[in-house]
Amino acid sequence: MHFRPELVHIKGYVPGEQPLGDEAVKLNTNENPYRASESVFDAIRKVAEIGLSRYPDPLASTFRKAAGRLYDIDPDWILCGNGSDDLLTILTRTFVGNGELLRLPYPSYILYKTLAELQGAAAETVHFQPDWTLSHRFTDNPAALAAQRETHERSNRLRLAFLPNPNSPSGTILSPETILRLAEELPCPLVVDEAYADFAETNCLKLVEKTEKIIVSRTLSKSYALAGLRFGFLVAQPQMIEQLLKMKDSYNCDTVSIAAATAAITDQDWLAENRAKILATRGRLTQRMRDFGFDTPETHANFTWNTRSDIQVKPIYEHLKANGILVRYMNYPGWGDGLRISVGTDSQIDRCLELIEKYLLEDGGERIGELKIEN
Amino acid sequence: MHFRPELVHIKGYVPGEQPLGDEAVKLNTNENPYRASESVFDAIRKVAEIGLSRYPDPLASTFRKAAGRLYDIDPDWILCGNGSDDLLTILTRTFVGNGELLRLPYPSYILYKTLAELQGAAAETVHFQPDWTLSHRFTDNPAALAAQRETHERSNRLRLAFLPNPNSPSGTILSPETILRLAEELPCPLVVDEAYADFAETNCLKLVEKTEKIIVSRTLSKSYALAGLRFGFLVAQPQMIEQLLKMKDSYNCDTVSIAAATAAITDQDWLAENRAKILATRGRLTQRMRDFGFDTPETHANFTWNTRSDIQVKPIYEHLKANGILVRYMNYPGWGDGLRISVGTDSQIDRCLELIEKYLLEDGGERIGELKIEN
Repeated sequence: MHFRPELVHIKGYVPGEQPLGDEAVKLNTNENPYRASESVFDAIRKVAEIGLSRYPDPLASTFRKAAGRLYDIDPDWILCGNGSDDLLTILTRTFVGNGELLRLPYPSYILYKTLAELQGAAAETVHFQPDWTLSHRFTDNPAALAAQRETHERSNRLRLAFLPNPNSPSGTILSPETILRLAEELPCPLVVDEAYADFAETNCLKLVEKTEKIIVSRTLSKSYALAGLRFGFLVAQPQMIEQLLKMKDSYNCDTVSIAAATAAITDQDWLAENRAKILATRGRLTQRMRDFGFDTPETHANFTWNTRSDIQVKPIYEHLKANGILVRYMNYPGWGDGLRISVGTDSQIDRCLELIEKYLLEDGGERIGELKIEN
Repeated sequence: MHFRPELVHIKGYVPGEQPLGDEAVKLNTNENPYRASESVFDAIRKVAEIGLSRYPDPLASTFRKAAGRLYDIDPDWILCGNGSDDLLTILTRTFVGNGELLRLPYPSYILYKTLAELQGAAAETVHFQPDWTLSHRFTDNPAALAAQRETHERSNRLRLAFLPNPNSPSGTILSPETILRLAEELPCPLVVDEAYADFAETNCLKLVEKTEKIIVSRTLSKSYALAGLRFGFLVAQPQMIEQLLKMKDSYNCDTVSIAAATAAITDQDWLAENRAKILATRGRLTQRMRDFGFDTPETHANFTWNTRSDIQVKPIYEHLKANGILVRYMNYPGWGDGLRISVGTDSQIDRCLELIEKYLLEDGGERIGELKIEN
């Protein structure tokens, strides 16, 4: 059968392991370990009373109004999606055509590359510096980067750049000032993927007013503990929203998720309390991993990135998995590997740290680096 | 900003009017007028108890197993989507590239044309015969149809055909034997969009075993009264599913909708009872519209298509709207116009019929055709 040829040869994106049972402690996909605000579930139960026989509001207006109030943004600057994945797909399809180019930093969210490939486009990666900042090369015109590519024909067709901020897997963040400069230098829109921004101190929402080139995407999956709901939104200037609207499925958000998401962002007390808990646990996790000898950069997200130059870390992932704890082992060719550990509850993190410590202390502590000495 | 040029020039799909208030009687988007099975809402309430902090199952396996049991199909032949719109988008993106061709009958579901345009592809329409059958031209190779097109360059690049069955707006149906013949003659896959098949006597699910060229899509929006939930599925041979999976968003169905959809298809008693009610009302609506002088073909869906050759029907749509009843006025250039009326509750349909009768009787009954004489 005649599939599009570019499709047959790509692998497709593989999301993090999602065991169907409830036994495993999941610290591998940056889910929030706590239950969402009860107002979310009240909203869901209310929808169940009303029924679902009618189509949802295509624009999710109740959510857009609530988000507009919260962030002091006109609702016409907001587009809702079936998770931010839906929005990233809409953005890629809107800007990047067959044979064109999408730019992303490396290492970052692997999905961006798949989105380009599904469009028959190419993804061009620019390596982060060792300190997780970006060099001027991120905004270079494509011709300047042509040497690293297989073909030169796409050299003037850079159409979109994705930048997760805070980044995954590192949890590091670039300042709004830096992002604005990157956007101004780029010849195309810059999507700032703020999936984790609620765990950071800064964000780029206010930059959208300054330039139509900056588009900010958000998700309720992480900071609102609603990964199972699939709801995200993006903020862009209205002339951008107008075109993006044509690309989305008419009813991309369902009635339950619109009501639940609206309830979620309306309960900012819940967010503040949840955030404080996550940040406290995150600080402890970061410190302990450093004590164990890991290189763990300061994180602004709900996970930590942990690398070693002295020992292999994949066996640690396997050791944890064998003991019922899933973390994410990631290996980035040309960069290195590491363990990305989501911030779980205190007891989940205690159990995880305990297992790592025991593993490192095996064989007379040879694998623990400086830990024994420090202790 | 550099949008994809094909996007800027298209209008985008405009769904049927969706008033946000609860006052209007909606007979315009083929929603089911009844409340879904209570087991659906029990499932939703159960999800609300468990919480939504985890990502959903990317494959919606519980639904696929339940549907597999119901239809005696291996779950690996089933792909779930965020409404059948999501599936139609996935199918179009999988098979139809930039500059290629998608075929659809006319008049049918307008969205198909938009889906082709969003890919930078073209849609080629083949008119139904006046009796709503399809001529051999639907399966002609594109070169034979080239004369009607603006450009010939796409003439050998037909990649996908969509066929709603039962069709909208007509409600008419082609037999499985006819569909199989069409598929065998086509040079590309044939998607049989069975959004309304639960209201018909036949369907094409069993044809999927016979040829990989037939793909059947279904939705829970109509027959299960779950338009607000966004859940659909398609049935295709597993080597087709394998490629389609690469194209879908990782978590395209949310935890609530997977649980609710699984509960819905498990309650076949509810479906049988609801279907019987809809079909009884549908029969009465059809008969009365014919009595009023409309040309109303025998319908196999949850709506009727009503045309007149003697009087304008758009004023009837406006008259109904002014009185709080929304039906769908559709005007197909080169074919004609008509009113598509969804099968509502008995009292909704009574009210609609009463308003139409009164309208036709105004001006001394001049507009009612033969009705006065028959009465």
